[in-house]
Amino acid sequence: MSQRILDVCLSPALYSYYARPDSTVVMIDAIRASASICTALMNGAKAVLPFSDKDEAYKMREKGCVIAGERNGEAIAGFDFGNSPGNFTPENIRGKDLAFTTTNGTRALNTAADFDAPVEEILVGSFLNISALTQYLITQANGDVVILCSGWKNSVNIEDSYFAGVLVKKLTEVGNFFSQEAARLVEFYAQAYRESAFETVMSLSPRLEGKSNRLEADFRYCLQNDLTDIIPVFREGRITPFQ
Amino acid sequence: MSQRILDVCLSPALYSYYARPDSTVVMIDAIRASASICTALMNGAKAVLPFSDKDEAYKMREKGCVIAGERNGEAIAGFDFGNSPGNFTPENIRGKDLAFTTTNGTRALNTAADFDAPVEEILVGSFLNISALTQYLITQANGDVVILCSGWKNSVNIEDSYFAGVLVKKLTEVGNFFSQEAARLVEFYAQAYRESAFETVMSLSPRLEGKSNRLEADFRYCLQNDLTDIIPVFREGRITPFQ
Repeated sequence: MSQRILDVCLSPALYSYYARPDSTVVMIDAIRASASICTALMNGAKAVLPFSDKDEAYKMREKGCVIAGERNGEAIAGFDFGNSPGNFTPENIRGKDLAFTTTNGTRALNTAADFDAPVEEILVGSFLNISALTQYLITQANGDVVILCSGWKNSVNIEDSYFAGVLVKKLTEVGNFFSQEAARLVEFYAQAYRESAFETVMSLSPRLEGKSNRLEADFRYCLQNDLTDIIPVFREGRITPFQ
Repeated sequence: MSQRILDVCLSPALYSYYARPDSTVVMIDAIRASASICTALMNGAKAVLPFSDKDEAYKMREKGCVIAGERNGEAIAGFDFGNSPGNFTPENIRGKDLAFTTTNGTRALNTAADFDAPVEEILVGSFLNISALTQYLITQANGDVVILCSGWKNSVNIEDSYFAGVLVKKLTEVGNFFSQEAARLVEFYAQAYRESAFETVMSLSPRLEGKSNRLEADFRYCLQNDLTDIIPVFREGRITPFQ
């Protein structure tokens, strides 16, 4: 069997140079959107509907959605919730659709979904589902894999690059993948690990370290491995668990 | 003295997100354009004139320029030379202007030069002048530093990321810099070093490894440290040595 191409797109602004027809795209916004999406689905949300535009997300309240999101890391005024995964408890979310908009993650999802050349599938990856995701990509998905980092306003960020590196390492250890150059770059970065994913990311990112007083619980939550086996799949505007 | 910001832009397509007013931009196309520019100036070229468009470069022959360049790694038909630094001997280049066009490097230079917010200075960095460049950035340049990797057709490449990492390491060891996230990412990558820069880059890049039969001499030449103290400065369409 020929090797499958594995690549990492470090910013949504580079996606057109990394898009591969019929590939599986894994969107990453490790802190916090990916973890929030996994958590909402874990806790029984029917679907997560990602919006790039906050006004569009806001309008979904009329359609019975819970609405949540952030801009620049802050909850949006008038929304039910911000982007903390702690909001998406069973009490708040079970059986409901969640309209969700974030600075980076939901935009990255829509960048991939709206791109000319159609992809096979768009998934959401986070530490919370990393082992299930690895297994899925090796055994269920076919074709090439493009890991799409959300970054920070189109700049490269530490937490997504680091997560991408850990995922590349797991995929190439077992699967029949051929890593492209950016995949090799971030895989090397996975060696930055020290003590825990939380310690690693904080030691590398002054941006996150500066927020960690206020958001430490969220960060620690987002950086836990394997809380769920759910693979969130984005199809026709809705993210639902792979069945 | 407050710390100077040090950042790395991994693709010219991201430059608008990394541009900093009054910064010094260091363009890198480690294999081979940066080394070719350094070599032409070392060997007595009056100036190197970078063109994004090959037809514009071609027209410069009428104005007495030597014309050289490549597309997709191949010399351009009708041009005096390709992009091999071995072409730019004193015999071929002394006292002359060199009109130069390459797939990535000359475009990266023009991306920075044409950007709305003016920068303080645009320099060319390569292994060939890395120590002189480090010294210059620490002692002569003021303000922030943005290392601009040319990449490969707007994708992230190994050799420029690796060079950027080595340069970040050298700058932060001595200078008063505060590294942004992409600078930290590539600095970690500098640890990939094994045996020599040539061995390092070849072990990481199947793209370059695949070309190394044909181009090994060029690659080894481009990956040598400190052949020259020249700092190429790009001003008003012309690259000349800093005086």
